Amino acid sequence: MARQQRSTAALYPKSIPLHWQVGEGVEPETWIDAAVPGAVQLDIARARGWGPHYYAENWRDYLWMEDRTWTYRARFNRPPVESNERLLFVSKGIDYRYAITCNGVTILKREGMFKPIACNISALLKARNELIVTVFPAAKVRGRPMDKSQAAESFRPAVSYGWDCHPRLIPLGIWDETGLELRGASHLHDVELGYSLDKNLGSARLRLAVRGQALAGRSFQWTVRDSRDRLIWCEKGPATADSFTLRGLADDVKLWWPRGHGESALYSWRFELKDGGRILERRSGRTGFRRIRLVMNEGAWERPRNFPKSRSDPPMTLEINGRRIFAIGSNWISPEIFPGKITTALYQRLLRRACQANFNLLRVWGGGMVNKCSFYDLCDRMGLMIWQEFPLACNCYPDKAGYLRVLKSEAVAIVRRLRRHACLALWCGGNELFNAWSGMTDQSLALRTLNSICLRHDPQTPFIPTSPVMGVGHGHYLFCDEGGRDVMQRMIKSRCSAYTEFGVPSPAGMQVLRKILPGRDLYPPRPGTAWESHGAFNAWLGESWLELGTIERYFGPSAGLEELVERGQFLQSEGIRFFFEEARRQKPACSMALNWCFNEAWPTAANNSLITWPDLPKPSLRAAARACRPAMASARFARIDWAPGTLFQCQLWMLNDRLEAVESGTMQVYIRCGSRRRRIGRWEFPKLAPGIHIRGPKLEIRLPEQIPPRFKLQLCVDQQPRLDSEYVLLKSAS
Amino acid sequence: MARQQRSTAALYPKSIPLHWQVGEGVEPETWIDAAVPGAVQLDIARARGWGPHYYAENWRDYLWMEDRTWTYRARFNRPPVESNERLLFVSKGIDYRYAITCNGVTILKREGMFKPIACNISALLKARNELIVTVFPAAKVRGRPMDKSQAAESFRPAVSYGWDCHPRLIPLGIWDETGLELRGASHLHDVELGYSLDKNLGSARLRLAVRGQALAGRSFQWTVRDSRDRLIWCEKGPATADSFTLRGLADDVKLWWPRGHGESALYSWRFELKDGGRILERRSGRTGFRRIRLVMNEGAWERPRNFPKSRSDPPMTLEINGRRIFAIGSNWISPEIFPGKITTALYQRLLRRACQANFNLLRVWGGGMVNKCSFYDLCDRMGLMIWQEFPLACNCYPDKAGYLRVLKSEAVAIVRRLRRHACLALWCGGNELFNAWSGMTDQSLALRTLNSICLRHDPQTPFIPTSPVMGVGHGHYLFCDEGGRDVMQRMIKSRCSAYTEFGVPSPAGMQVLRKILPGRDLYPPRPGTAWESHGAFNAWLGESWLELGTIERYFGPSAGLEELVERGQFLQSEGIRFFFEEARRQKPACSMALNWCFNEAWPTAANNSLITWPDLPKPSLRAAARACRPAMASARFARIDWAPGTLFQCQLWMLNDRLEAVESGTMQVYIRCGSRRRRIGRWEFPKLAPGIHIRGPKLEIRLPEQIPPRFKLQLCVDQQPRLDSEYVLLKSAS
Repeated sequence: MARQQRSTAALYPKSIPLHWQVGEGVEPETWIDAAVPGAVQLDIARARGWGPHYYAENWRDYLWMEDRTWTYRARFNRPPVESNERLLFVSKGIDYRYAITCNGVTILKREGMFKPIACNISALLKARNELIVTVFPAAKVRGRPMDKSQAAESFRPAVSYGWDCHPRLIPLGIWDETGLELRGASHLHDVELGYSLDKNLGSARLRLAVRGQALAGRSFQWTVRDSRDRLIWCEKGPATADSFTLRGLADDVKLWWPRGHGESALYSWRFELKDGGRILERRSGRTGFRRIRLVMNEGAWERPRNFPKSRSDPPMTLEINGRRIFAIGSNWISPEIFPGKITTALYQRLLRRACQANFNLLRVWGGGMVNKCSFYDLCDRMGLMIWQEFPLACNCYPDKAGYLRVLKSEAVAIVRRLRRHACLALWCGGNELFNAWSGMTDQSLALRTLNSICLRHDPQTPFIPTSPVMGVGHGHYLFCDEGGRDVMQRMIKSRCSAYTEFGVPSPAGMQVLRKILPGRDLYPPRPGTAWESHGAFNAWLGESWLELGTIERYFGPSAGLEELVERGQFLQSEGIRFFFEEARRQKPACSMALNWCFNEAWPTAANNSLITWPDLPKPSLRAAARACRPAMASARFARIDWAPGTLFQCQLWMLNDRLEAVESGTMQVYIRCGSRRRRIGRWEFPKLAPGIHIRGPKLEIRLPEQIPPRFKLQLCVDQQPRLDSEYVLLKSAS
Repeated sequence: MARQQRSTAALYPKSIPLHWQVGEGVEPETWIDAAVPGAVQLDIARARGWGPHYYAENWRDYLWMEDRTWTYRARFNRPPVESNERLLFVSKGIDYRYAITCNGVTILKREGMFKPIACNISALLKARNELIVTVFPAAKVRGRPMDKSQAAESFRPAVSYGWDCHPRLIPLGIWDETGLELRGASHLHDVELGYSLDKNLGSARLRLAVRGQALAGRSFQWTVRDSRDRLIWCEKGPATADSFTLRGLADDVKLWWPRGHGESALYSWRFELKDGGRILERRSGRTGFRRIRLVMNEGAWERPRNFPKSRSDPPMTLEINGRRIFAIGSNWISPEIFPGKITTALYQRLLRRACQANFNLLRVWGGGMVNKCSFYDLCDRMGLMIWQEFPLACNCYPDKAGYLRVLKSEAVAIVRRLRRHACLALWCGGNELFNAWSGMTDQSLALRTLNSICLRHDPQTPFIPTSPVMGVGHGHYLFCDEGGRDVMQRMIKSRCSAYTEFGVPSPAGMQVLRKILPGRDLYPPRPGTAWESHGAFNAWLGESWLELGTIERYFGPSAGLEELVERGQFLQSEGIRFFFEEARRQKPACSMALNWCFNEAWPTAANNSLITWPDLPKPSLRAAARACRPAMASARFARIDWAPGTLFQCQLWMLNDRLEAVESGTMQVYIRCGSRRRRIGRWEFPKLAPGIHIRGPKLEIRLPEQIPPRFKLQLCVDQQPRLDSEYVLLKSAS
């Protein structure tokens, strides 16, 4: 914005870049250049001229590094530091256990990658200085096999220890912005805007909490501008203490809404600390005003009906600003194995794809990372709600005091960093912790501590201990399950309050496969090759994730890899389409549809993702986008494959999650076989109020004796072709 | 114990009794004598010479009092207070909103009946002094009907606002020990023994936390004695600060066990604050060492089986010292409408009855009181586990800041008071909060705050937000439900992880009925009389609690009240017997059987209680005791009434919750009609290991064409008659 570019630069803090090197051991014999932020593994690979870590089995070359100690070194001449200034070593994150020394003096020892570091080194400065960051071997629970269970006493992404979609690669090192920072005598530690909306959501009482040091005697200016950049609050005055709270008012506020429900209005604020006319420091931020609640799904209070009576299913409907929102979206995986590589540009490309898919929520899955700040800034602007999990997944995290101490300190840092974001819709303890394969319960001190921390530091944002909670469904993750039932057969019988992980796999596109698999492995796909380490075989139950047998069941043998890929991607597309539409048809008993998963941390050969690493959409992303159109015609049918001459039945729906009504109209329903179209029937549907779905008639038609391998069910809405929908059905093999 | 009686008296604190009067309004015109502890209503009733509050409709005479302000007054001459002494006004509880002044100066204003009061009034003393406690009208949410919903913003027993088993009577006033206390310059605020058991539960590291004032310069002596009164720890030394922690060790500890699982061993400790040879203050207590966990029920991890997969049911099995305990017992109601009347002797009489019934756990129901200290002391000694609820029940307690402030301060006081008791097995947020009639959810800030407080102040004791949690069953509460199904029909189809409220009602005995009902109301029982206000009609769903129709269905018209009472009590006994046995037969899938309810706050005419107020057992108490024998023969059958000539079937069981094996033996099974006994069959059962139940054969017999109105199923164990069981069956009316 022009306004910001005009403003005078603040004197402090001044960043001083460092040149980093890294070496193996506590006292490395040789040093190589280190990229910061980055990871030790990337530096080694670069120094040795290795090919991409995602090619073939290259990832195995990195394994030895997880058990070594690594030392970062930065040497620098004493910068000009005035007597009233202070020089700090600052870092937003080092992964995961480390010690920091300056000129031989230990200034910090810590376990935890999320709590920011700020160590005053002024008193230690000499003419020539040396900062050392010793990164200890990856934390592992002793005596466990080489898998995720080794992560059960760490508060960091368990996915690094090896997952179906992620090779074993445990990043080590400095993963977020790190360097020297020159500060004045007067310094702002933290400035945070909080607010309380009145009952009618018409005005917001603002609270600017300022914490710093040596502020007395300085002056400040605080301004708030609305979403159209109009100044709505300005306050100047003397700072009287190191910690104070300013209060303001935003009248007639424009609320922040998630995508599809209104503008995601953001107010901006700026706080300047001044010494006379000089601006010493400046902090600024954006805030969206919204009230968020997790409320009972409609009808949930009516169950259970009988005695002995248990409790009702817990609430899973997000209510924003008093409006119930059907949450639609996907599960966000950390988009890189090495978080140090993640850029704002990558976040932006991926999040734009989520918007194009008509998603309004992403679940930041607990197996992966808490993202960098820019991720949440982008989601604030794009109106993408965030379900944020703490980094716990599929393990039994213990009640041990040492673990709980790290968890507490890290979780407080995470909550205090993210709570200011309008996009933050839900805190969650982690992934699948209340299932047998994790073995945690409501009695876990770790989860009770996380609940308690969220209550204390962010009471206005809902908290759930894990996903799934009772009534919520995870899975299935295959097009055809163990019993041979397809997506359609399963989904029409499922009754969940929310589907928060539902997956259908597919192979990656040819371009990706050629890039990651050696030529000799390419065809036919088989276990024991790079296909397997890239997730195509033995990744989960059954024949995951390539589903070779399922593809052959529907289509017979494939002529080559191109055909196989097309068929696998077709099944994913139709499965994902049906999943999203069926979950929406179950509204309001169902309140969420999130597929597993959105993206990838590296390029898999086959996976449930809609997007191949780093940001290549699969055809299923378009199918998801179609199925998540706010208003659309929709059909429920019993399975994907139909035998010639049998009775095909479908139940019609009109879905409307728009803010506006859908006008009444006529839906024509056809079966199209090749160029031939047979009309099954029509439905004169009434006007649909905003947020209302209507169930139409059940139509049926005897299928012809001759049908092609693929044929279509088409729903065509007269004069409103944007509401049209189309499903591809298969001729049954039997 | 002799040792204690020999010890020299401590100098402080010295209690100074007060003479209290009470009057209506802020400045009463007339004063009457007040009993302290007690309640304003009792003082008024006494002064006016009223009959008992439980007779007929007398309770209605008290209603006007709840909306008045009441003033307590105590006048006293200045006691001899040395210059280094302090005089405090102390109280363990005033119900519920009040202000306290001394000589016209306000020394406290508070909402909340549980947090103890200690106000230094030394500086306010004159020759003649006046303490005033102004008790404000009962707290009520405005605009609500005159029922429990008015209690939705109070942290006190909701039962007082009117319940099926409790008239509307909201106590007001000083309900626990209250008076003046003379303290020395050096004073102990709190001394508490905490401990950590090692993994093998063999030794306990002790922590004595001492908090006081002006302790420096004093000395102390701390002793710990084991359960046989042998000194195992003694430490003397100088007090160096106002707050310090002493550490000790108890080796080879004798653990505390709940009844039936071993001795409830209690260690005693004593702490003396000394000034040279003089004992200034003394604190002492008893501690039972045990490790308590709430663990998953056996088999619970195997569910859910299918995808989409939800979570497993939460844990409901109490594990004490590593042993899974089947919790058997009842729901404890406050044993008086006015808690000020409750004596240790009353607690003792009631708790002894719980022991005689073979119970090992009482759920202190959230609709009622947190009990006085002596209750928990007795339970410690008797080995009765306590499930303690906070006073929340059947309301939607709000997220309002003011309410949460009171809740927090009161709950912290409760947790800090009770956490030292070995009997305390489980904290629970309150009663039925996650059901439609309450409308609270996991997102409630009140419940999240309680979880957080328990985590902080008592992390080693499990916490559940409410009962029922998922998988746990409440109800049914009638012998025959709306569909005409009896207890047996319902219970054999129920599959709950725990039955924590299951009730069968009965009328009170003749003696009680004559005492509480006017002669004109006695017979026939009918709505609109004192029967109704004493719970016999329209108390809950259906024909509660007298179940006149059900009694007539099975027995036809009754000849008089005696017969009616006998029949109602018979149904309760057989229903309760079947409930307890069937819940036990469902172990380990089921882990708890608690009937609704144990006792009463006033004498009801009909109710689910096993004991009529104050401590008169109904016949069902003996039936419960029989059904809760640790080892016994047991039979499952499909209903209570059987038509002549039909096939009677029963499934045999041997139950063994003893610590010892049950030797193998022979069970003979008979149907006894009057004096005639027909053998159905026999079962040579094997030896039963401790804690193991065995399912025997299913036997059947064609019933004779002539059977009496009541006949018996008898299980007789050769040579072990204490294992025998007997069930009374009814001849079907149809």
